[in-house]
Amino acid sequence: MKFDHNLHQEQQEKEQTVVIPSEENMCRTIEVAIIEPPSQPQVLPAVKLTPPPTTVNDDEEMFIPPLNFAMVDNGIFRSGFPNSTNFSFLQSLSLRSIIYLCPEPYPEANMDFLMANGIQLYQFGIDGAKEPFVNIPEDTIREALKVVIDARNHPLLIHCKRGKHRTGCLVGCLRKLQRWCLTSVFDEYQRFAAAKARISDQRFMELFDTSSFKHLPMPFSCSKRIRAHSLYRDSACQRTQKQGS
Amino acid sequence: MKFDHNLHQEQQEKEQTVVIPSEENMCRTIEVAIIEPPSQPQVLPAVKLTPPPTTVNDDEEMFIPPLNFAMVDNGIFRSGFPNSTNFSFLQSLSLRSIIYLCPEPYPEANMDFLMANGIQLYQFGIDGAKEPFVNIPEDTIREALKVVIDARNHPLLIHCKRGKHRTGCLVGCLRKLQRWCLTSVFDEYQRFAAAKARISDQRFMELFDTSSFKHLPMPFSCSKRIRAHSLYRDSACQRTQKQGS
Repeated sequence: MKFDHNLHQEQQEKEQTVVIPSEENMCRTIEVAIIEPPSQPQVLPAVKLTPPPTTVNDDEEMFIPPLNFAMVDNGIFRSGFPNSTNFSFLQSLSLRSIIYLCPEPYPEANMDFLMANGIQLYQFGIDGAKEPFVNIPEDTIREALKVVIDARNHPLLIHCKRGKHRTGCLVGCLRKLQRWCLTSVFDEYQRFAAAKARISDQRFMELFDTSSFKHLPMPFSCSKRIRAHSLYRDSACQRTQKQGS
Repeated sequence: MKFDHNLHQEQQEKEQTVVIPSEENMCRTIEVAIIEPPSQPQVLPAVKLTPPPTTVNDDEEMFIPPLNFAMVDNGIFRSGFPNSTNFSFLQSLSLRSIIYLCPEPYPEANMDFLMANGIQLYQFGIDGAKEPFVNIPEDTIREALKVVIDARNHPLLIHCKRGKHRTGCLVGCLRKLQRWCLTSVFDEYQRFAAAKARISDQRFMELFDTSSFKHLPMPFSCSKRIRAHSLYRDSACQRTQKQGS
């Protein structure tokens, strides 16, 4: 498919000298461009938009990732609250666990999905209060982070309601652990939170102290993950809440 | 660190009944809350912000990912143009190749980095023209996509200048190949392009026909990647431009 952006330039352009009469007998010469309309009304060719084949059969099922879905690192994903339309996509991730950051009980349909797919649920109930009454609980994020970096839980999905604030803070703390500069941590946080970005969340991430994780190196990307995993096996991992199979 | 949001509630509140005089001898009773100021000026305790230790030594080097950096899929990353401040971060990814989507020559410092780290450069020069004179070349994106899905090139970084339009279109076409619904493809594109999102880019992605890739299944996430890789080995892979070692 091609759009012809030069059509308007194909109209005939002529330059012509115009003499403007003057009472003072002064002669001024101005060059003007006169664009003559085409003698026949121009018929623009229809733009052909050829959509790709839309035949959907069992082999061509479309996937619907949850709201705000993204890959955080090898074996770590993030999103907003998944619903039943997202289940076939989530199934394709072969998830081993889900970290759920809201205090509300997990919906029955989602629990059934976890049971059917052998996915472990870790719930860390953080209130979704609005600014300025936001107080991300540091201890809870710290416990959740232990689950995130334990490769035995991977592939793992972190989600809250919209995948912006609570999920954004947990991922931001993971990035600090991965020694990302604060500018990049905030840039990523803001990409998901967009117009809803909160200064209080960013202050929380800035002040989050990763020194208690120092014995657990957590470099970005898969190539070094195996080493981090084996190191983590020696440390205490708390499963705060077990549900599902 | 804790912020006490209840301080303002500690001020003394009293309810009092006020009788408003009336010429018509009508008596109206209104309940008002009178907030008495504290007898002594209240001294608010200073909020302690304890930043995490900032000592930086060789073991605690900070990483600076490139602008708009993100993980696309296992072994596939995206970003804006990396500069020398990003090299140590890129080194941590153990990249095998870079797909560069601009027509301008690759800077010398970046070429040196590729040479030193044995990274293959694939350049697909796509003009960064502005709307409405945007025309993403379909054939070029198709060739670039072949390089992206060839796992022999992983870990791989896709970048253009800002990581929004050209990179966004290539990643969007990959998502179509991964059978993401168009809503999710656009949602991801817009997350990176933000206020610079282009309708023309989205139209390009919508119309991009993936049927020629049908013999190369490319499911999302690592768990199925090995199968995709082995299948791809049997197909023709074109290395369009070789630079670096």
